[in-house]
Amino acid sequence: MVYFDAASAAPLHPVARQALQASLDEGWADPARLYREGRRARLLLDAAREAAAEAVGCRPDELVFTTSGTRAVHAGIEGALAGRRRAGRHLIVSAVEHSSVLHSADVHEAAGGSVTQIPVDRTGRVSPSAYADALRPDTALACLQSANHEVGTEQPVAEVAQVCRAAGVPLLVDAAQSLVWGRVEGDWSLLTASAHKWGGPSGVGLLVVRKGVRFAPQGPVDERESGRAAGFENIPAVVAAAASLRAVRAEAAAEAARLRELTDRIRVRVPALVPDVEVVGDDTHRLPGIVTFSCLYVDGEALLHELDRAGFSVSSGSSCTSSTLIPSHVLKAMGVLSEGNVRVSLPPGTPSADVDRFLSVLPGTVAAIREKLGVPVEPARAPAGSDSLVVDALGRRCPIPVIELAKVIGDVPVGGTVRVLSDDEAARLDIPAWCEMRGQEYVGEQAAERGVGYVVRRVK
Amino acid sequence: MVYFDAASAAPLHPVARQALQASLDEGWADPARLYREGRRARLLLDAAREAAAEAVGCRPDELVFTTSGTRAVHAGIEGALAGRRRAGRHLIVSAVEHSSVLHSADVHEAAGGSVTQIPVDRTGRVSPSAYADALRPDTALACLQSANHEVGTEQPVAEVAQVCRAAGVPLLVDAAQSLVWGRVEGDWSLLTASAHKWGGPSGVGLLVVRKGVRFAPQGPVDERESGRAAGFENIPAVVAAAASLRAVRAEAAAEAARLRELTDRIRVRVPALVPDVEVVGDDTHRLPGIVTFSCLYVDGEALLHELDRAGFSVSSGSSCTSSTLIPSHVLKAMGVLSEGNVRVSLPPGTPSADVDRFLSVLPGTVAAIREKLGVPVEPARAPAGSDSLVVDALGRRCPIPVIELAKVIGDVPVGGTVRVLSDDEAARLDIPAWCEMRGQEYVGEQAAERGVGYVVRRVK
Repeated sequence: MVYFDAASAAPLHPVARQALQASLDEGWADPARLYREGRRARLLLDAAREAAAEAVGCRPDELVFTTSGTRAVHAGIEGALAGRRRAGRHLIVSAVEHSSVLHSADVHEAAGGSVTQIPVDRTGRVSPSAYADALRPDTALACLQSANHEVGTEQPVAEVAQVCRAAGVPLLVDAAQSLVWGRVEGDWSLLTASAHKWGGPSGVGLLVVRKGVRFAPQGPVDERESGRAAGFENIPAVVAAAASLRAVRAEAAAEAARLRELTDRIRVRVPALVPDVEVVGDDTHRLPGIVTFSCLYVDGEALLHELDRAGFSVSSGSSCTSSTLIPSHVLKAMGVLSEGNVRVSLPPGTPSADVDRFLSVLPGTVAAIREKLGVPVEPARAPAGSDSLVVDALGRRCPIPVIELAKVIGDVPVGGTVRVLSDDEAARLDIPAWCEMRGQEYVGEQAAERGVGYVVRRVK
Repeated sequence: MVYFDAASAAPLHPVARQALQASLDEGWADPARLYREGRRARLLLDAAREAAAEAVGCRPDELVFTTSGTRAVHAGIEGALAGRRRAGRHLIVSAVEHSSVLHSADVHEAAGGSVTQIPVDRTGRVSPSAYADALRPDTALACLQSANHEVGTEQPVAEVAQVCRAAGVPLLVDAAQSLVWGRVEGDWSLLTASAHKWGGPSGVGLLVVRKGVRFAPQGPVDERESGRAAGFENIPAVVAAAASLRAVRAEAAAEAARLRELTDRIRVRVPALVPDVEVVGDDTHRLPGIVTFSCLYVDGEALLHELDRAGFSVSSGSSCTSSTLIPSHVLKAMGVLSEGNVRVSLPPGTPSADVDRFLSVLPGTVAAIREKLGVPVEPARAPAGSDSLVVDALGRRCPIPVIELAKVIGDVPVGGTVRVLSDDEAARLDIPAWCEMRGQEYVGEQAAERGVGYVVRRVK
């Protein structure tokens, strides 16, 4: 089995395993206790905190260990918002944040706060000026990921941090995807991360709050971890997390260059090998190991299933909505094709041959799925009959509405329109994306008795 | 080093270690993913859930894994309160709950809810009728620990559950201390526990919500663990927790009988070996492995330090306020002596010889501390002079105020009074406790310019 889903979780790093096993004997006791076992546990915890702080580039007393990256985000956002309640209740987030950030924003909004979502361009990148424009006198906090978890696009964190600093607003950076590769540059105020993304064990996140940042932990009082992360410390896991972060960092520069070459290979060759593919994400500002593409006329779930059968583990759509059929909020915000979406995220150490084998398997896999779905392989036929057609794709899931559209576009003359009736949320994204890929004109939406009518004009 | 603080954290059980190591390779991936690694992780998680549910005595779909017992309590209480908001906002807790329960109650109160604390008797036990009396039409939730973490007293959970059920109010049972020994009997509605109390790894708690109980998870939405425990699942730890619970349960009956004999030995022999000791907690309704006693005229921190030097790891006062000097809320609620407090909690497998060695070391250790503090060894001297005396112990920490009282009680005639001025919170508990132990009369408190005047009448 070839595992290409490191952005979701990385296998345990050998150094993490060693550190975990060694500290199971030393780190199980309560570090708040004064007896020998407690003091020993405290020493381990302190050393892990120092190592993690060094990797982050902060003071040890600015960093606490949480039980996951998600918990770090939840606690970081609610603590920062509460600490700045006097300033106001306005929160800024980008539209492509991890669901833990967006769900925290939902809670804030439900409690009467206001939220501004910063849009992204087609590569998934925010612009610092959009943050500048969104800042208000009552802005309590701004959030920006260091890099996107679905498409790998790196964000201009340092510039946004500068803009926020100038306005006196703290910036929280979700560094879950990038901390493995290096420190987050710039004058950020809070930072979160997750150990199982860098080969550390599950159950460990980081929350960093810079000195001077107003922060009021929420929830029941708990004296552990400076009152910022309730519950008994998981010291063996924390030790393993810190040790593995240090270990991956030692090889980060060389490994990043190597993985970047492998993802470049995928970026370049997939569109050449597979017809009707859109590679999404920023070409330059991107993480070394992630590459994402969408395949027209393909059901993402079926593609994942077939790739799994062929021995490849990849993910699709939003990494956080795998159990639903709604297209990823990230792809939606970018305005790119969502159907047949595949995220390949290479773990450090991925052999070059695995990537080549993936590239050799992918074209046939995609073709087989398309064939099963009855995708039109013919180019647009000669016009015949009416200059406007209606395709009823109600009740049919993505990619069927787009396939049906492709089947009939040649049946209207140039200048004629096709109206696709669909109640699948993905159509809203994928029909315009198909138009862009095919050089046809997307006219817009029309109300319909059931679902929505998506109108497309044939222009060639 | 002899470790007698299992109620705080137990060393990792060998079965937990094996299970953890085995599942590090199988359980690191995201169980929400459909590829092979994800499916394998999901299988492990499901199997662990079934094993834990079997040990608890609930359905697997009623049980979620949290990241600690503390988090289970926080999430359980806030979820149950929110789920029953329509019924009202009244919460009932016992006065001797774990701090995670009491701090959750504080949050509820700060948000406008009302809280009733059920008192305990001198052994630390609540009465079911007190719960019955406290139930109101607007009671949303009641909480009761299965057994106390500081003194080992078992609570009448089944009776209280019956009383609550009759009133249609759910009962949340914090089973952290007792789940290792067996299921919690009775018709409870929610249950919480913590794996590192039974030799499982840190980082795993249990939250059980019976079907039919109204429950509304709070905080940002997260789809993992039925929406009740946010963050990436820590599957290797969860597998280890479930495996070790099963393993300790297999030996629980025999080990409980053996440990009970050892704690009985301490209960009987400590008062015989060490003068002026009060063994606290219920003699009959108690956990097998916990025994707690307080030593008059002894500073608990000094005693812990000396016992640590002698090779014994025990805890003192409130297990949750080790970094503060405030006497434990549990001892306070019981109205027993708090000074020189020692909790001995034996891990399963404790050799009998370790207990004997502890009993041989303790008398000399206590005597040395008392000698250093200048404790009066003489019985009360003949009366001389005034029939009322004032002892100024302002600024002096426990046990000094009590020691000073003991020094002068013989200086007033029978019927005369001593007024001890103290600003140490522990004096409020320890001066009445001393009176009870010494057969003197505690008259009460008097306002004073600084601190409080505690008035004691010599009656013999």
